[in-house]
Amino acid sequence: MHEPDPTRLAGDVLLTDQYQLTMAQLYYRQGLHQHKARFEHFFRSYPDYGNHQAGYAITAGLRTFVDWLNNAHFDKYETDVLARHPTISGGHIFGTDFLGWLREEGDFSELSINAIPEGRVVHPGVPLTVVEGPLILAQLVETALLNHLNFETLIATKASRVLDAARGGTVLEFGARRAQGSGAYSVVRGALIGGASGSSLVGRSHELGFLPRGTHAHSMVQAFMALGMGELGAFRAYAEVYPEETLLLVDTIDTLESGLPNAITVFEELRKKGYQPLGVRLDSGDLAHLAVRSAEMLDKAGFADTSIVLSSELDEITIWQILEQIAEEAPRYGVDADHLIKRLVYGVGSRLATSQGDPYLDGVYKLAAVADDGVWQPAIKVSDTPAKTMNPGAKRSWRVYDQRGVATADLLALEDELVQPPLELHHPNQLGVVRYLSADKVSGLEELAQPVSTTDLPSPHDEVVMAQARRVADLERLDPGVRRLVNPHVYHVSLSGPLAKLKQEMINQASR
Amino acid sequence: MHEPDPTRLAGDVLLTDQYQLTMAQLYYRQGLHQHKARFEHFFRSYPDYGNHQAGYAITAGLRTFVDWLNNAHFDKYETDVLARHPTISGGHIFGTDFLGWLREEGDFSELSINAIPEGRVVHPGVPLTVVEGPLILAQLVETALLNHLNFETLIATKASRVLDAARGGTVLEFGARRAQGSGAYSVVRGALIGGASGSSLVGRSHELGFLPRGTHAHSMVQAFMALGMGELGAFRAYAEVYPEETLLLVDTIDTLESGLPNAITVFEELRKKGYQPLGVRLDSGDLAHLAVRSAEMLDKAGFADTSIVLSSELDEITIWQILEQIAEEAPRYGVDADHLIKRLVYGVGSRLATSQGDPYLDGVYKLAAVADDGVWQPAIKVSDTPAKTMNPGAKRSWRVYDQRGVATADLLALEDELVQPPLELHHPNQLGVVRYLSADKVSGLEELAQPVSTTDLPSPHDEVVMAQARRVADLERLDPGVRRLVNPHVYHVSLSGPLAKLKQEMINQASR
Repeated sequence: MHEPDPTRLAGDVLLTDQYQLTMAQLYYRQGLHQHKARFEHFFRSYPDYGNHQAGYAITAGLRTFVDWLNNAHFDKYETDVLARHPTISGGHIFGTDFLGWLREEGDFSELSINAIPEGRVVHPGVPLTVVEGPLILAQLVETALLNHLNFETLIATKASRVLDAARGGTVLEFGARRAQGSGAYSVVRGALIGGASGSSLVGRSHELGFLPRGTHAHSMVQAFMALGMGELGAFRAYAEVYPEETLLLVDTIDTLESGLPNAITVFEELRKKGYQPLGVRLDSGDLAHLAVRSAEMLDKAGFADTSIVLSSELDEITIWQILEQIAEEAPRYGVDADHLIKRLVYGVGSRLATSQGDPYLDGVYKLAAVADDGVWQPAIKVSDTPAKTMNPGAKRSWRVYDQRGVATADLLALEDELVQPPLELHHPNQLGVVRYLSADKVSGLEELAQPVSTTDLPSPHDEVVMAQARRVADLERLDPGVRRLVNPHVYHVSLSGPLAKLKQEMINQASR
Repeated sequence: MHEPDPTRLAGDVLLTDQYQLTMAQLYYRQGLHQHKARFEHFFRSYPDYGNHQAGYAITAGLRTFVDWLNNAHFDKYETDVLARHPTISGGHIFGTDFLGWLREEGDFSELSINAIPEGRVVHPGVPLTVVEGPLILAQLVETALLNHLNFETLIATKASRVLDAARGGTVLEFGARRAQGSGAYSVVRGALIGGASGSSLVGRSHELGFLPRGTHAHSMVQAFMALGMGELGAFRAYAEVYPEETLLLVDTIDTLESGLPNAITVFEELRKKGYQPLGVRLDSGDLAHLAVRSAEMLDKAGFADTSIVLSSELDEITIWQILEQIAEEAPRYGVDADHLIKRLVYGVGSRLATSQGDPYLDGVYKLAAVADDGVWQPAIKVSDTPAKTMNPGAKRSWRVYDQRGVATADLLALEDELVQPPLELHHPNQLGVVRYLSADKVSGLEELAQPVSTTDLPSPHDEVVMAQARRVADLERLDPGVRRLVNPHVYHVSLSGPLAKLKQEMINQASR
């Protein structure tokens, strides 16, 4: 065994589970590796955070996966690693035949990918990503695909909910210190696609073309205090170095008695020099109450346009509650609640970066069909739990818009079906439960998955900005009940008649 | 903005929050950057998974942080990125003076680190990592330190609990598909330090000198079925390619009616050829019941020594409940429960990789003291919540063993204190609550933090193996009540008299 090579991580073709490689060798040895296969990636259920649940998800991570695909190769380094893996009796699990094939032909350019574009609203059971190509290659990408898409989708979904709760306020991602090592990079991208305006993480933000955000920590005030210069000295130093960007953390000693008065002193000094202070940050205590009192003091001192940044264990529910409390408490202090809410900025860290409450998306990657002599053979995995039995065969997915232009259902159909209104929407698990939509109730039918190019890619920044725009457009066409933070209305994902029939036949056949 | 460079991630000095850099420039501009500072990293509370809670944690991530330190440099690439960050009026946030200093002197070799070695049992409030050196450098490592140590400690702790529940059974980490992108690498290391025997993740396992684990997925059986060769054909192919390592997933169609009979057929064929089959894997359904029925069928067929691997949404509570159910149900089928439990292997994925229930450790990195003219000035951050008020000053931490050799408390004392029995153990937050330990009740006093070398490092494999051994030794010296999975007994973390006095004085002073 040798030292890890820290430069190999990002496009690491060995970001894979051992069984992908043992299966790949088996396909190779059995001569099955070139059979055309179709895998579908989908998630089974919305994130459920315990006392609140998502009614929609925002898909993300596709570009990260495409970057992985483009960088992942079996070079000598990788096949040497695999060649060392012993069998029980001291032989080699992986033979030189297979490893040679991996090095010569084990790249992923033969795969074709269809996917729902990043940033779109998505629902359980609908394929987000469809991979088609030689069985061996389509199998080998599973782990990386699930890893990148499941996690970024999870975080984009959480961020989107935080944005919803913040009523359009600015949300910043602050979670690097509680993320999973380099997983912090994925957090940033997921959060941006979910609607965050920026992140504190420096490198990854710049790579994505967003300016990292942040000013100072308690430690700066502590250091000045320990050196006898006090909180006021710390704030003055900050304003001196960053006169255009003075945003001060006011809770190191006592927010109302020390932090805010000192901040206002420094803001007044800045104003005399012709600078506009940016605002204050509150990181502990009763954030709603302190925001009201901060607004009161800042307004009186003539700094009504400064931001008030809130941080400390925020999530969608806490933000919702803070805004409720502000609406109630602000008038008592002569503060305009609406004006205060508009100046709030939310630094959301740990609970966003880990999707606290439900830290993983149950996304899976299932074989839907294998071609035999050029004919698709549908594949199925039956389960004791009906909801876990997959929808078989090669499929296409459509979004159905009602007469108001609101998305009313997603419809899965077989690949060669002609889908047009009137529509039969079959329940995915309950045989015979059908909803009919006459043609006049359907204002649009939109195919969800699009071909994915792995070349001529937009810049990482453009990719995120386009995804952000798709999210905004989709949320406008989503029923408000589905967006509700707690106990949302259930969106319908349905099967076409022919797909429902095939599924039932295959279940009957498998259980014979 | 330019394309991300995927090779730069692992030792990325820009795995940092923006405010670390703005503070660093401020220290530089104010001439404070060379003041000697001491930061302490500690966590505030054990992971609380909701209906169950940890009573101890296992520290991990130190070596990953040291590798980051050794690879993190401000080269031209990084300072160019920072130079592009504009101010509001279009100037530059970071000046050429500061960026030049970063390139010339911004490496971390001047820092000295003391830490509790990886794998040890640790408790809230006790510094796990202590960083001493120039204020600017000690500040700049905060994000990466917290990121690596918080997360690996979280996962090592969860893995250790899973091991406890498994009563010494073999635990494998299977969570890459639900981890945070490259965070999967950190999952593997944390899980191994917490006692897992291996992981499915290929690259990272090899880098750490552990063989990755895994055999095949449902998709392989599905593919053989779709191509008309059936489950038995799939199993036969597997046994042909991997005769020494045949472990078959038996739940693709029907575990008891199809999977197990087919597996036993193939096992018998293997036996005739002189091979020992490894076993079966169960991934859905009532795992306890199916394990009993699998044992019954395998025993009857003469395969009583094969493994039975369980996977699917496992965690410490599920494993505990499965073992309870097996003890009750096995006799009804003529199966020896103890023998069955000994042959079980647990593939633990999503819930281990994300520490489901509590997906982040609340570890913080606080300025404890700054030197002024060579004299340490203690620093403090006061909080409205007494438990969040840090313990000030430069400290040392000791573990106190009672007359049975069991760890009875951790004691924080000032750096220059002489700590010897009899001991006064002051409650960290409740003034005047003191426990006395006479000399005859103390069998040992052990200093917890050790100097950390950043050169001449052991191999990554040896480092993990040493950590695993430390965990085993510490758990043997831990009260069983503290190890309890649910509602554990509370371990004491106490302050010495002089430290309690300093803390009270500084709180009084700060609130004046």
